[in-house]
Amino acid sequence: MPNNQPSNIVFHPHSVDKSSRSRLKDQKPCILWFTGLSGSGKSTIANAVESMLWERGKHTYLLDGDNIRTGLNKGLGFSDEDRVENLRRIGEVAKLFVDAGTIVLTAFISPFRSERQRVRDLVEEGEFIEVFVDTPLEVCESRDPKGLYKKARAGEIPDFTGIDSPYEAPESPEIHILNDRLPIEEAAAQVVDYLEKKGYLNA
Amino acid sequence: MPNNQPSNIVFHPHSVDKSSRSRLKDQKPCILWFTGLSGSGKSTIANAVESMLWERGKHTYLLDGDNIRTGLNKGLGFSDEDRVENLRRIGEVAKLFVDAGTIVLTAFISPFRSERQRVRDLVEEGEFIEVFVDTPLEVCESRDPKGLYKKARAGEIPDFTGIDSPYEAPESPEIHILNDRLPIEEAAAQVVDYLEKKGYLNA
Repeated sequence: MPNNQPSNIVFHPHSVDKSSRSRLKDQKPCILWFTGLSGSGKSTIANAVESMLWERGKHTYLLDGDNIRTGLNKGLGFSDEDRVENLRRIGEVAKLFVDAGTIVLTAFISPFRSERQRVRDLVEEGEFIEVFVDTPLEVCESRDPKGLYKKARAGEIPDFTGIDSPYEAPESPEIHILNDRLPIEEAAAQVVDYLEKKGYLNA
Repeated sequence: MPNNQPSNIVFHPHSVDKSSRSRLKDQKPCILWFTGLSGSGKSTIANAVESMLWERGKHTYLLDGDNIRTGLNKGLGFSDEDRVENLRRIGEVAKLFVDAGTIVLTAFISPFRSERQRVRDLVEEGEFIEVFVDTPLEVCESRDPKGLYKKARAGEIPDFTGIDSPYEAPESPEIHILNDRLPIEEAAAQVVDYLEKKGYLNA
């Protein structure tokens, strides 16, 4: 008897979700949200953390100005409205990466508590880890790696965080890095140790 | 002699990039861009592909209306301008996932060639794989899983692709799925076979 029907062996696709993606990666996904003044060392420490995690076979991604401002958030300026939208999109993308099972690191000044809280509220309990890179303004300004403080002091950059716009320090960050004179590897190790102790480095 | 200096063992963080993330995942990252009419089976096939890849230990993520429209693209409507911005952001996010080493699947009607070309242009040669889910309009309309065709025919949804707005079929898609009566597993296998033959499933 000819059989033009599909095979009786029914294909049941397993729905791939956050849980199955996390098991495949043997880790618990989360957002490591680095916040701190310009020049505080957010990106440097985040890069070092990513490097340490890669060495341990962990799956990470780093969102920062380099890959966000020129792509997804191209066209957004520095008005209050655009700044809010800028961080909103970053939060939403970080959430997608968490859903994909990734440990996602973000390095943005993100000076306002309300903005950071909004991202925290997007994800589940324990998935938002606030990392306060606490470097005194004088130290940041003396480093001034991109010459931005100099420009801000000269009035060339309005609303510059720490100069003429406030930085609202986290009140109870999950990780508090006192980053004055701390070697990068120690700062990064502080983050990795936290992940280790809290069980993020296994599924 | 007391030593308050950091250790002489210098920490050289390896810069984690697309290449190192891909090696960790043992795959070549790419965008599987599913395009086709509403009801053509894009999401169903994409889900089945993701399931098959997960079984093989491959790292994937699926972007579709469910996780994009309510999050990153919340606030965008259906004007021409908003539709363009909708796909632009999806393309930029897909690019970030590729940079993270992921095989990212997207399931959006994306009816215009120019829009799809714009995403293709965002990434490197070979990273954009257009998957044309080619299902006759009559079949899509008879399935009408969300009742959208019925509403469109009743004039309740303006500019509905296939009814009163054009669908520009891909001219040379990397993968062409003739999805009339094809069992899901065969459609999905067609995609996985392509990835296998072209070497995407190993780093």
